[in-house]
Amino acid sequence: MKLSGLYLVTKDYYNGNFFNIVEESLSAGVNILQYRDKTNPYNIKIEAGRRLKNLAYKYNVPFIVDDSPVLLDILDADGIHIGKDDPPFEYIKERFPGKIIGVSTYGDINLGIKYERLGADYIAFGSFFKTSTKDDAEMCDINILNNASKFNIPVFAIGGINTRNVDELLKYKISGIAVVSAIFDAANPGEATRTFLEKLRKIL
Amino acid sequence: MKLSGLYLVTKDYYNGNFFNIVEESLSAGVNILQYRDKTNPYNIKIEAGRRLKNLAYKYNVPFIVDDSPVLLDILDADGIHIGKDDPPFEYIKERFPGKIIGVSTYGDINLGIKYERLGADYIAFGSFFKTSTKDDAEMCDINILNNASKFNIPVFAIGGINTRNVDELLKYKISGIAVVSAIFDAANPGEATRTFLEKLRKIL
Repeated sequence: MKLSGLYLVTKDYYNGNFFNIVEESLSAGVNILQYRDKTNPYNIKIEAGRRLKNLAYKYNVPFIVDDSPVLLDILDADGIHIGKDDPPFEYIKERFPGKIIGVSTYGDINLGIKYERLGADYIAFGSFFKTSTKDDAEMCDINILNNASKFNIPVFAIGGINTRNVDELLKYKISGIAVVSAIFDAANPGEATRTFLEKLRKIL
Repeated sequence: MKLSGLYLVTKDYYNGNFFNIVEESLSAGVNILQYRDKTNPYNIKIEAGRRLKNLAYKYNVPFIVDDSPVLLDILDADGIHIGKDDPPFEYIKERFPGKIIGVSTYGDINLGIKYERLGADYIAFGSFFKTSTKDDAEMCDINILNNASKFNIPVFAIGGINTRNVDELLKYKISGIAVVSAIFDAANPGEATRTFLEKLRKIL
């Protein structure tokens, strides 16, 4: 299965309409779901992760966890997304063969080349726009996406993407986009999802 | 090997005299070393962890990591210490058979009983004193240590222990004490270590 399209990354789990938002977005057609949670303790993450995996599978969508090989293992998720502060790629590749591994490559084309060679299943460049999700997100030059077609693995754009600025990204040969607040903070998450998917048709 | 005595828990790794302090304390006779680091990225933790393990082994002392089964696995440490926000005990026990697992049991005797039954190698009660290492540390009644002799596994006291207040703990049937700042912030870490060990002779 080629990973592409609209990639929904969660906010940290909170006791509210968290799962409703995810399900509205899944039912509107989101293509990949990632559980990202930088703050909750493991017992909460395991519980929330199980519910998210069930939701993802209900809609036939791959379920990815962020950062934690332990969560990948306990939830038996489809894959894991890692960045520069996380456990090493090589370790995860060896210990969890067959799992999807996605890597944040920020604005660094050489990092992209490195991880494609090491066997990453996708890479994600960004941020190209200001994002409220990650205070310390590096800003990158959008022109790095001119290199997207050089990769044989899917290239995603991530960081501060919303329904207004997404068109700027669709000029490039990317496989998809990853979003957090644009869906989690939307008045209508299902509608926001459909708007993104409509625009993404251009590249899919 | 029964775990007992003076258990040195590190501060987060910092680029300074971090390793010197650890080695001074090891050479003065510390009995167990734990690498605790809540802030550094994994690449730093792996590097610092390797150096700490080498130091621990140079002095024939068990090397424990804090929180992370991934670090336990990558460093092939002797064991792991977990608290309530960390990956579940049962998961670690199953995935890493033969590794030492220590558990923070705060001021909760039932938690101690639970983890002894599940196969913990030691438990740690505390804090009994104010600690600067952990801002949100729960304060517990020191009388919980009256139950120490009921356990068949080693019971440690942890949290805000220094060379002045340690005597209060030594009235109880504990196996040892864990310290951070009392050694890391000591003018002379080797001397602080020797002072603790001298006092601990009473219980060992």
